[in-house]
Amino acid sequence: MSDPFHRLHTAMNQFASARDWDQFHSPKNLAMALTVEAAELQECFQWLTEAQSTALSPEQLTAVRDEIADVQLYLIRLAGKLEIDIEQACWDKMKKNDAKYPAERVKGSARKYTDYE
Amino acid sequence: MSDPFHRLHTAMNQFASARDWDQFHSPKNLAMALTVEAAELQECFQWLTEAQSTALSPEQLTAVRDEIADVQLYLIRLAGKLEIDIEQACWDKMKKNDAKYPAERVKGSARKYTDYE
Amino acid sequence: MSDPFHRLHTAMNQFASARDWDQFHSPKNLAMALTVEAAELQECFQWLTEAQSTALSPEQLTAVRDEIADVQLYLIRLAGKLEIDIEQACWDKMKKNDAKYPAERVKGSARKYTDYE
Amino acid sequence: MSDPFHRLHTAMNQFASARDWDQFHSPKNLAMALTVEAAELQECFQWLTEAQSTALSPEQLTAVRDEIADVQLYLIRLAGKLEIDIEQACWDKMKKNDAKYPAERVKGSARKYTDYE
Repeated sequence: MSDPFHRLHTAMNQFASARDWDQFHSPKNLAMALTVEAAELQECFQWLTEAQSTALSPEQLTAVRDEIADVQLYLIRLAGKLEIDIEQACWDKMKKNDAKYPAERVKGSARKYTDYE
Repeated sequence: MSDPFHRLHTAMNQFASARDWDQFHSPKNLAMALTVEAAELQECFQWLTEAQSTALSPEQLTAVRDEIADVQLYLIRLAGKLEIDIEQACWDKMKKNDAKYPAERVKGSARKYTDYE
Repeated sequence: MSDPFHRLHTAMNQFASARDWDQFHSPKNLAMALTVEAAELQECFQWLTEAQSTALSPEQLTAVRDEIADVQLYLIRLAGKLEIDIEQACWDKMKKNDAKYPAERVKGSARKYTDYE
Repeated sequence: MSDPFHRLHTAMNQFASARDWDQFHSPKNLAMALTVEAAELQECFQWLTEAQSTALSPEQLTAVRDEIADVQLYLIRLAGKLEIDIEQACWDKMKKNDAKYPAERVKGSARKYTDYE
């Protein structure tokens, strides 16, 4: 319970329950909502150059921060519905990535990077 | 440092650094990659009914778990680049949502839900 | 020139040119904008059941129609920048799909459908 | 019937019908599939610079061409299900955009462009 994922998960459950929104929150629908939020996050960057994207104004940063939260909250909600432990899933996936993209083979190469992605 | 977000962030930084991939990880590009991963997660559900999406096979669940991890890892990486504290951003956003969707007004209504979204 | 893709392409070029927006319309950025519009289109459906999505209200249909146009316009703009003939690309892709999903093998099977996708 | 949208629509209907896939093609599901294809298109560009995205290799161009076709085909299929005339929707939307982004006010300004978007 001292873990942020668990704390946020509990708060999200209470939020949805108080609004009787569980009926809309099938994993399919939550996955859709997650993609929509990711696209809204991406929208903050779409007309910026890569350089500009590293130097956001305070207004831009606030907007990005809110969208990052939206993505995170739907991700926690979706994982919760499927009883997936996000942190453990991440560690397991990083092990797979480590094997899939051996540092010595893909190092510094955009070409390799793209091919391996 | 005992927080899962920080632990994963540190591990992600080492992973990217060992591969010299920082050059590709502008916030703009990371936001793009995040949306692509969210879409891959959504793809797991796209031809399932909502009911089927609540009862995944072990194979489907493994695929979903990996995609959830990919979304989480890019989100942590993006937030890290922008020095955004994800957990705090979530709590702040939940407060905004609480004010935006008052429980007593939107309760149980798909119509209201959609309108307020 | 009597083809709708060409007519819309010409009109889009004039629209962007009158606003001096060519500078923002790299293929990378247009691909981002396209995904954002696709997500906005999807958002119209995300809390509806599949059955509800087949019986939209006039207001919902208007919103969907506008988003479909946005997706189409960015797609034409992107294809134009890359000198890709959309219609020919579609016919070529349908031939590939025909070979990839032989009707007699995948017919009526959600399982096969999903696996082949 | 001499219009490419109609020709492709007819071919798509036959393709889905021969596979008994109409059952999966609710507007909700088609909108999901469209976003997934848009994300796959975007993925072709995500680690490229904007400059690189204007000078694709033949292999990259082939991949992009196929993804553009996938987006177009799902868009035609979705519009067909909802009996929306894509070309007319585009002309109507361009009129709205013309009014929303007056050329003399937004010309050449990234700031204005972003705000107005």
